[in-house]
Amino acid sequence: MRRLKYAMVGGAMGSFIGPIHRMAVRMDNLADLVAGCFSRNGRTNAASAAKFRIDPGRAYADWESLIAAERGRIDFLVVATTNETHYAIAKAALKAGINVFCEKPLSLTLREANELGRLAARSGCVLGIPFTYTGYPMVKLARDLVRRGELGHIDKVVMEYVQGSFRKPDRRTTWKTDPKIAGPSCVVADIGVHAFTMIEYVTGLEVKSLLADLSSFSNSAGLDDDASILMRLSEGAKASLVASKIATGEENGVRLKVYGDKASLSWDQEAPNYLSVKYPMRPEMVYKRKAPYVGEVSPRSVAASRFPAGHHEGFVEALANIYDEFVAAVISGRSRDFPGAIAGVRSMRFVEAALKSSKAGCRWVRV
Amino acid sequence: MRRLKYAMVGGAMGSFIGPIHRMAVRMDNLADLVAGCFSRNGRTNAASAAKFRIDPGRAYADWESLIAAERGRIDFLVVATTNETHYAIAKAALKAGINVFCEKPLSLTLREANELGRLAARSGCVLGIPFTYTGYPMVKLARDLVRRGELGHIDKVVMEYVQGSFRKPDRRTTWKTDPKIAGPSCVVADIGVHAFTMIEYVTGLEVKSLLADLSSFSNSAGLDDDASILMRLSEGAKASLVASKIATGEENGVRLKVYGDKASLSWDQEAPNYLSVKYPMRPEMVYKRKAPYVGEVSPRSVAASRFPAGHHEGFVEALANIYDEFVAAVISGRSRDFPGAIAGVRSMRFVEAALKSSKAGCRWVRV
Amino acid sequence: MRRLKYAMVGGAMGSFIGPIHRMAVRMDNLADLVAGCFSRNGRTNAASAAKFRIDPGRAYADWESLIAAERGRIDFLVVATTNETHYAIAKAALKAGINVFCEKPLSLTLREANELGRLAARSGCVLGIPFTYTGYPMVKLARDLVRRGELGHIDKVVMEYVQGSFRKPDRRTTWKTDPKIAGPSCVVADIGVHAFTMIEYVTGLEVKSLLADLSSFSNSAGLDDDASILMRLSEGAKASLVASKIATGEENGVRLKVYGDKASLSWDQEAPNYLSVKYPMRPEMVYKRKAPYVGEVSPRSVAASRFPAGHHEGFVEALANIYDEFVAAVISGRSRDFPGAIAGVRSMRFVEAALKSSKAGCRWVRV
Amino acid sequence: MRRLKYAMVGGAMGSFIGPIHRMAVRMDNLADLVAGCFSRNGRTNAASAAKFRIDPGRAYADWESLIAAERGRIDFLVVATTNETHYAIAKAALKAGINVFCEKPLSLTLREANELGRLAARSGCVLGIPFTYTGYPMVKLARDLVRRGELGHIDKVVMEYVQGSFRKPDRRTTWKTDPKIAGPSCVVADIGVHAFTMIEYVTGLEVKSLLADLSSFSNSAGLDDDASILMRLSEGAKASLVASKIATGEENGVRLKVYGDKASLSWDQEAPNYLSVKYPMRPEMVYKRKAPYVGEVSPRSVAASRFPAGHHEGFVEALANIYDEFVAAVISGRSRDFPGAIAGVRSMRFVEAALKSSKAGCRWVRV
Repeated sequence: MRRLKYAMVGGAMGSFIGPIHRMAVRMDNLADLVAGCFSRNGRTNAASAAKFRIDPGRAYADWESLIAAERGRIDFLVVATTNETHYAIAKAALKAGINVFCEKPLSLTLREANELGRLAARSGCVLGIPFTYTGYPMVKLARDLVRRGELGHIDKVVMEYVQGSFRKPDRRTTWKTDPKIAGPSCVVADIGVHAFTMIEYVTGLEVKSLLADLSSFSNSAGLDDDASILMRLSEGAKASLVASKIATGEENGVRLKVYGDKASLSWDQEAPNYLSVKYPMRPEMVYKRKAPYVGEVSPRSVAASRFPAGHHEGFVEALANIYDEFVAAVISGRSRDFPGAIAGVRSMRFVEAALKSSKAGCRWVRV
Repeated sequence: MRRLKYAMVGGAMGSFIGPIHRMAVRMDNLADLVAGCFSRNGRTNAASAAKFRIDPGRAYADWESLIAAERGRIDFLVVATTNETHYAIAKAALKAGINVFCEKPLSLTLREANELGRLAARSGCVLGIPFTYTGYPMVKLARDLVRRGELGHIDKVVMEYVQGSFRKPDRRTTWKTDPKIAGPSCVVADIGVHAFTMIEYVTGLEVKSLLADLSSFSNSAGLDDDASILMRLSEGAKASLVASKIATGEENGVRLKVYGDKASLSWDQEAPNYLSVKYPMRPEMVYKRKAPYVGEVSPRSVAASRFPAGHHEGFVEALANIYDEFVAAVISGRSRDFPGAIAGVRSMRFVEAALKSSKAGCRWVRV
Repeated sequence: MRRLKYAMVGGAMGSFIGPIHRMAVRMDNLADLVAGCFSRNGRTNAASAAKFRIDPGRAYADWESLIAAERGRIDFLVVATTNETHYAIAKAALKAGINVFCEKPLSLTLREANELGRLAARSGCVLGIPFTYTGYPMVKLARDLVRRGELGHIDKVVMEYVQGSFRKPDRRTTWKTDPKIAGPSCVVADIGVHAFTMIEYVTGLEVKSLLADLSSFSNSAGLDDDASILMRLSEGAKASLVASKIATGEENGVRLKVYGDKASLSWDQEAPNYLSVKYPMRPEMVYKRKAPYVGEVSPRSVAASRFPAGHHEGFVEALANIYDEFVAAVISGRSRDFPGAIAGVRSMRFVEAALKSSKAGCRWVRV
Repeated sequence: MRRLKYAMVGGAMGSFIGPIHRMAVRMDNLADLVAGCFSRNGRTNAASAAKFRIDPGRAYADWESLIAAERGRIDFLVVATTNETHYAIAKAALKAGINVFCEKPLSLTLREANELGRLAARSGCVLGIPFTYTGYPMVKLARDLVRRGELGHIDKVVMEYVQGSFRKPDRRTTWKTDPKIAGPSCVVADIGVHAFTMIEYVTGLEVKSLLADLSSFSNSAGLDDDASILMRLSEGAKASLVASKIATGEENGVRLKVYGDKASLSWDQEAPNYLSVKYPMRPEMVYKRKAPYVGEVSPRSVAASRFPAGHHEGFVEALANIYDEFVAAVISGRSRDFPGAIAGVRSMRFVEAALKSSKAGCRWVRV
């Protein structure tokens, strides 16, 4: 089998997200990084290329040159830049017939996302987006438990995605509150979209409308840093979400609870190798990643696990699981279990609806 | 010191809440039960009276006779009946100059609650309400940490009070979904009021307005069994609350998180002897009930504790703490640390606002 | 039914254990405290009697007078004094035909315990001992799960009972390290006996021999403040126990794990309303106190529960459960589910064996 | 910088431990796998080599050929075979001047381990052993907290390493109970050595003597599958360890508690990104991996962390941390923070002492 090759825009050494992508790709030995435009700063770009053992001739000064020169030579492009550039880069790459794995949010506006979605469909290129939490084995088990009817009819979803990052004096990602770079939303576009995607992924339901109350408590240039969002889903289900960057002392609290009429489930990203299922008339059951009984319910949860139960997996394995499926789609051309163009577009519908609802004084808005 | 005496309406043997009240009063040996109208069923009433060693002449066929005969002979009356009778009984008792400890909700309507509040003020009688969660030592510590400014300015409160009781085939409290007995609200009036009261108690802030989305998922005769409520508090804080009786598999999940700009706190009724405080730049701190360092911050938390740290206290101790303060107020005539008329009235404003908001399609309504 | 009456030796106001006993007896309204010798200090004794509303004529200067005067007038005597007096008081009471509820350790020596055991048998009096942890509903469930064979053959028990009390600068119970008052052992006699009793209670097995390594790390006058003890039980099972008073920062860590060849269980006194059962090929199951499914396995666990699942019970309820059974035995004259003479004697065999083994350089010693 | 190259013996595709080593090496992009003898089965060997993209000419039929052909061409050799071959392969490699990263146990006997230790010293080659738990960032923080005196003088260590693997009907690693392959010990040599190494690593103390009670509860051919071990450490500290493979339902329970006279710490591998520190007179403090305050105490804990606090790391990151240090030692020739020859030899002294003590009826034996 031919060895896959990929390039990256953004993600210079020292960045937060770049190394995570590279580690995730290396974890299952999926592809080699062969080209990049890691930074707009020439020296950082060159130094990064050297560190990543990239041929200097394939370290490009700008992403336009990269796409022009690498089309046909790489299997996919990872876009790990700041938000405001996602759309243009992804668009150019898709037009050049290059598969794209693009950081969230997919774009600054829904219109742009729609365009990328159409472009991906038309070009036959694969578009992947790291909604990483959908890559966790126990989240896949959750989805399969729902699908098998273990929870019965789903009535209510309660979710929180809370961080205290905006309370830390030293936070370096200041661009996230600069509307020119981050776009019109901060907390909803940055982490709210993860929550939204997880809810639709696990329940298999669609969010039909929402009502959002966005706030700006910290010095975040007027961008939302806290959100309470109510949602109405298909089949009569409802959801309540809190997403926040001002949840002092929280690191990365992603907690999902799904209540059906037969059972409920809960998953907490801070103990990601467990999934709890509760029943009205039976003891709570705690599933453990890759334990023998998981396979009976969710073969794909087991397939997305590397180490035996008790040997913990975490964030990078979850991202690697998404890359595994993305790369499989790149190779096979067939749809696989990873968040792609549809999830990307839907997440931007969610962002726009939330902004609109909050501005209108918390009206219900269709998603 | 004279030994205090009390009577009870409702709470026959076999009822859920009656024995808890009696145990709580006995715990700190506060008063003797000397009279009662425990049940409208004559035999149950007599049998209960015998079991509680009440003089048969003080077991009354109806509460009107009890109040008429016992005024001046008892120090307080405990009202442990179903919702629809609270108002009339409390009103009659207060008019007779009897101190009242009345189950929540205080009444079926805000108008009635207002009347009881005025009556209590005018009569000089003490009115107590078992918002039991405010009696937990670690909740008192939480309040004192907030008061001392440990959390800084409070921006956001996230709370859930979730039960799965309406998913159990055998639930016996069917009256809770009968509007004639329960009143116009089920989940908000039954447990939402606990959450509301805790939020105001711990933060020291006032809920100014709310937006509620009430649902009726189970066969609950159209009464709300699930609620998502957004709130705006004084000083610019916001709150998000989920209260539910259809949270399958949950027993009694009362979880409160308060996020200030300096620190946050969280308390979980399922591990009630702990309080966690998180900071942006320091390790999370876990306080343990009655540990030496608690006293430095909250003498009243220690005063509300009976056993050394590590020897767990629970629900009945929390209710006993409320009775301790109520009885101290009865004796001293002075205001103490327990939920009284004001909390009762405010909780009914909350219920009415929630019903109104939900009916109006989730509009903001003043509380 | 006649109302029961009891007297107490020791346990003046301000003591640790006295109020707990009184609360436990009040909890289920079992008996009235009518007499006492609460303190050797005359003023404290009188003040305590007044506070407890005891007839001054029944507040005795010494326990000998109490027993002489109260024989035939009380149903049982609670002994809540320091260790060195347990034997003499219990002996005199039993000889006087008075039922005795005596704090642990039952005596300072095995010889004394044996004598008390024989005396109880001969006199027909009931002897109860507050090995409180056996009173927890989830410990009763544990025992019943074992009895029903849910765990299969038990191979291994791992237990710890760890406190950090001897690391606190302010600890008031200094008598526990005074051999004249505490006897020849501190940690083993004070808390090791709880662990030992729990192990035999839950497993239904007998400890046959042990090997103990006792230490004295803190300034504890040469008495043991830390112990590692290996045990061999009937039917080939083994146990490993750590009991310590120098476990810095621990409050009252009582944690029991029982491993059978089909399943295992674990219980942690810091979350006493849960019991976890683990299987090789099924998800972990978490039982919750008084949930419907508990009754199918252990009616007595449900019977020992007061409040619905989710409303937490703790230490005083556990002690009250032991009193419930003790009082039922007092009334009926029949054996019930509480730790009595046999448990008292066995626990002293355990203490003596541990001292002997450690002194002999950690030899195996028969229990 | 030259790109490092390595070879592997054992670890064919489908094996448990082989893929983990390869992932760990890839995680930080440390070296390329260029040669191997992955299986004694020729077809499996060839298929594995193909899958790993190894030049077929560098897939060897036996390890002797590999060492002969690859000496001077590879930077290190990973030994991932079954126990009985470790010694011979490591010996041959060291003699050939090849750095070795060898699975535990280092050998079957102490004599062999000593020889390998001497050989490593003499040859100047680096010997690394995957005592993976010492690679966790929070374990490194634990060590540094001890070093800085935060715990004061260490008195007691309580550790358990419990698995239920031998209770699973389908366990595939049957060789672990075959003395010809596993050697004279199963549970002590397989997981006890991890616990032993962690204790010495975190406390900085030396185990001086031990007393072991080994059992064989499951059908494990007479080899130990359960162990209770008491230890005496330097500076008067004591330790109690339970290691078991028959702890039904446990997956991989590695739990360490260290009690000093000022504070204690506890770490649980099932929640590896947290470290708890308890004090007598202050709230419990919970440290979170890579949080800002960790760096003040333990720069190396932060250096061993990849993702921000809240994004969980697990088993493979811990192993990668050990490889990072091993490879740094390979490059620099200087000693680094990873378990090497000394840890390997000491762990075998531990195994031999445990076997000897148990055989002698639980006598104290010098380590």
